[in-house]
Amino acid sequence: MGTVRVKGIGASAGVAIARAQVWKKQVQKIGQEVKSPEEELARFKTACEQGLSGLATLYEQTRKRLGQKEADIFQAHMMLLQDPELIGPIEMLLAAGNINAEAAVQQVTGELASLFASLDGEYMRERAADIRDVGQRLLFCLQGTGTVWGNLQGSAREEKKTAPDSLIVVAHDLSPSDTAQLDTGLIKGFATQIGGGTSHSAIMARALGIPAIVGLGRALEQVEDGDLIVLDGTEGLFCLRPDEKELAFYEQKRADWLREKTRQARWAELPTVTRDGHRIELGANIGHPDECQAVLRVGGEGIGLFRSEFLFMNRDSMPDEEEQFQAYRQVAHDMNGKPVVIRTLDIGGDKELPLLNLQKELNPFLGYRAIRLCLDREEMFLTQLRAILRASHYGSVKLMYPMIATLEEWRAANRFLAEAKSTLTRAGIPFDPAIQVGLMIEVPAAALVSDLFAREADFLSIGTNDLIQYTLACDRMNEQISGLYQPFHPAVLRLIQLVIEAAHRHDRRVSMCGEMAADPLAIPLLVGMGLDGFSMNASSVLAARELINQLSFNEMKDLAEAALQLEGQEQVKALLLERTRN
Amino acid sequence: MGTVRVKGIGASAGVAIARAQVWKKQVQKIGQEVKSPEEELARFKTACEQGLSGLATLYEQTRKRLGQKEADIFQAHMMLLQDPELIGPIEMLLAAGNINAEAAVQQVTGELASLFASLDGEYMRERAADIRDVGQRLLFCLQGTGTVWGNLQGSAREEKKTAPDSLIVVAHDLSPSDTAQLDTGLIKGFATQIGGGTSHSAIMARALGIPAIVGLGRALEQVEDGDLIVLDGTEGLFCLRPDEKELAFYEQKRADWLREKTRQARWAELPTVTRDGHRIELGANIGHPDECQAVLRVGGEGIGLFRSEFLFMNRDSMPDEEEQFQAYRQVAHDMNGKPVVIRTLDIGGDKELPLLNLQKELNPFLGYRAIRLCLDREEMFLTQLRAILRASHYGSVKLMYPMIATLEEWRAANRFLAEAKSTLTRAGIPFDPAIQVGLMIEVPAAALVSDLFAREADFLSIGTNDLIQYTLACDRMNEQISGLYQPFHPAVLRLIQLVIEAAHRHDRRVSMCGEMAADPLAIPLLVGMGLDGFSMNASSVLAARELINQLSFNEMKDLAEAALQLEGQEQVKALLLERTRN
Repeated sequence: MGTVRVKGIGASAGVAIARAQVWKKQVQKIGQEVKSPEEELARFKTACEQGLSGLATLYEQTRKRLGQKEADIFQAHMMLLQDPELIGPIEMLLAAGNINAEAAVQQVTGELASLFASLDGEYMRERAADIRDVGQRLLFCLQGTGTVWGNLQGSAREEKKTAPDSLIVVAHDLSPSDTAQLDTGLIKGFATQIGGGTSHSAIMARALGIPAIVGLGRALEQVEDGDLIVLDGTEGLFCLRPDEKELAFYEQKRADWLREKTRQARWAELPTVTRDGHRIELGANIGHPDECQAVLRVGGEGIGLFRSEFLFMNRDSMPDEEEQFQAYRQVAHDMNGKPVVIRTLDIGGDKELPLLNLQKELNPFLGYRAIRLCLDREEMFLTQLRAILRASHYGSVKLMYPMIATLEEWRAANRFLAEAKSTLTRAGIPFDPAIQVGLMIEVPAAALVSDLFAREADFLSIGTNDLIQYTLACDRMNEQISGLYQPFHPAVLRLIQLVIEAAHRHDRRVSMCGEMAADPLAIPLLVGMGLDGFSMNASSVLAARELINQLSFNEMKDLAEAALQLEGQEQVKALLLERTRN
Repeated sequence: MGTVRVKGIGASAGVAIARAQVWKKQVQKIGQEVKSPEEELARFKTACEQGLSGLATLYEQTRKRLGQKEADIFQAHMMLLQDPELIGPIEMLLAAGNINAEAAVQQVTGELASLFASLDGEYMRERAADIRDVGQRLLFCLQGTGTVWGNLQGSAREEKKTAPDSLIVVAHDLSPSDTAQLDTGLIKGFATQIGGGTSHSAIMARALGIPAIVGLGRALEQVEDGDLIVLDGTEGLFCLRPDEKELAFYEQKRADWLREKTRQARWAELPTVTRDGHRIELGANIGHPDECQAVLRVGGEGIGLFRSEFLFMNRDSMPDEEEQFQAYRQVAHDMNGKPVVIRTLDIGGDKELPLLNLQKELNPFLGYRAIRLCLDREEMFLTQLRAILRASHYGSVKLMYPMIATLEEWRAANRFLAEAKSTLTRAGIPFDPAIQVGLMIEVPAAALVSDLFAREADFLSIGTNDLIQYTLACDRMNEQISGLYQPFHPAVLRLIQLVIEAAHRHDRRVSMCGEMAADPLAIPLLVGMGLDGFSMNASSVLAARELINQLSFNEMKDLAEAALQLEGQEQVKALLLERTRN
């Protein structure tokens, strides 16, 4: 059997070379035996409880290992497992008799998943995958074989004989449950037939730091256990049974990649400063206090964005002041004097919060969210402000409001802050009276009048994800117009320049915490435009620091000036690519 | 019985004084007799056909009398009357027997309307009102009394004895059907218990030019037929059984209002020019060729925005080139040499088009719409471009693209135009080879790089409705954040100034066709900022021309400069109010 080479979607960079282990989910043999409606109902309820407790464990493990964002999927699964739209029909089938729990679960999750899969858009397809994942989990629980993962892990161990110390997993698809628990000591990478670059398994592969390729199609059906495989996740190249020359080439490439990873790790100890001595502040974004350790490991110089939403999600009641205070204080404490910018609740838009019982909106991204909502919910907002203020006593805490569009909103928020301060003062509770207060610049209106904000705010932080979305009138989640989401559109660059100039005119620092801040193509330009600080996922910090240390601030100023003369994103990207290659 | 004074929502300006005619929709006595399932089904089908034909007439009448926008509601009703979700359950009930057509209609429309009414948001409540309106229409048809209107008209005529030549209608609510056919010779105004300033009856009252107040609540229950009423629609004041002093005051106010209307009519013949001789181009927006006569009546100097969507809506197949050509040519012809700016299809967002079978989107305003869609549907776009080009031979036609965000889109659209031109040239079909081509500036990105567009476009047209919406990240239809939709936000004013300056730097004319262009508070500011042209609903043209003729261009330049220094919408509005009062 000869060599097979296929191009897929590179989901996670790096090179892996190892023997294949093919994961085929066995179709469960579902017995038709029905004990009694009552007994089947009881079996189903027990399975739900087991499923929930398994998911809770998985959630905690994943959060600690990979971060909040990667763990969120399991909270979604837990909610699915409690969703009356899923549970109700199954219980009704069981109550009617004539069907056992396994068959009822299969039937209902199958139908619901097919319904979602038939709808348009990646979002719906992801929901279908979630429902199937939850259905599989219930089946495993019903069959008494423990969690889904336990089962797969078992089969993986059996197969270990074919490759004692390393394996590449080959599968039709990997569920988030599968991916989250991959043993990276054993599994060096994975390849799947379906999936896209933004699927959960792709996100998790990047977080785990193992090479992965998705969307390889039916070519993978030729792979058998023990086949030698080369995965080039950087290029999206999959090679089955490579010839000797190829193998040598990729062994070299893998060695280079591993050396590069090790080399980059040294940057954790070094400062972020351009060749000509211009200092940049390089912080990280986090969504949970547990992520501080990962930030400190890469030498993050602070938390440029601490998202507070995790405290409010997937629960039935509001977090009280004490609970919030503990979370904020933990981060202030763990960061040990490094600055921590806590953003007040940014909910609504794509982030729903069942707790708040919000209206469905026709255009949630242009709707009632973030500061707009907080200014209306006085008690909720004051509680959060008091908790943040209290944490400011235990470290270097700053406060930041999201989605500010008008000066009135900014001042209204600060009136609440003054009230929170005086409540604490009256109660004799300590806080930093000089706490710095800033705002996100993510609404075009705020960017356009950033001079007015810079007069009153201690700092500005540009949120590019939303800023680009509104400036181009383009929902970044909408696949049909993804080409219009252009970080390098001259309009976006002009807005960023406007904000930086306004901040500096008023002697204020301005940083960026959107995804653009971590883009190696954007960093030289942003340094040249005078951005003072960058905040990004911890996994991007080392590469960014290395890149900045190679730049000349003065050269980047010229580069920025040249880029701002260009008429479109393509021209800007071409210029940046050309200059950074030199 | 003494005088009753209530404050409601002024839905349409002006003063009316007349005797009341209370419209109470009688609860139909629905016979319980069931002939046979077949007969009831047949009766129901006949009623549907009658309803449809009545609606078709109503649609045509309303379009001619009030305009396309006001007529659209009846097309929506026609679609409802053919909607399987409404018709299906009724037919199922009838097929099951035991119920007659009237009862089935009442039950199904009642349940469906309650369902919509229970959902949040004004949009849903309007849908509930539509369903009830359609249900009433079906009941009237079943009872053999003709259309709803015929019935109401009859009762109105009977009551004529109480007020021989004028009446004010008092009702719980008026359906669009009721309002559209009000006989303004007899009915001088109306007052309703429920409804808001943006409800259909309010819109229609403004189009009819009769005073109206909505949202007056239960106070209206005290009104009896023949009671004397004063309606001050300008202030939203309703007065039942006014005393002599009040009556005299309002008779004077009504006389002033009528005189003002007559006086304003003279402006139809005059040019639009400031006191110091600065000429402004004052055109109108239309949504259908039939509206040209209304534009010419007020002396509109052209069509600043001809929306082409009417050709595509509420139909099963695409309009072909010939049909479109006829519509565009009619406007070019009717406007008799005055400029006509035809906008290519602006569909998607809030304007759905079942014909195109588009995906549901999470944020339609930030989605796949207008030029984004046209550039993907080559044949559809080329057909429209050829039709517009052909019409350019018959008048002064200009072409304009909506929702342009990037220079690439603009150039891609022009490549299609070049292709359409060469197709026509090859076929020997005449068109204006020098046709002017411009674009809407309604995406913030386009405004921010309007200098790049001004180099290549013949003219720019600012669409404020969308521009404000995106700049402030605020869906203007979302009631929860309506305070954030701020036309006078300094960011919006700065963007407008940027566009005007960019256009003039490249010697291009720039006009505005959003609702802001008709706002008497905005007009002096926009004149001062240097805007070359305004386009608005025909009903606003006379007042705008009178206002502009009273302004000094030089003074307005100073006013604009002062306004652009201010920090918020409230300050800007206060300045404008103060200056325009002098």
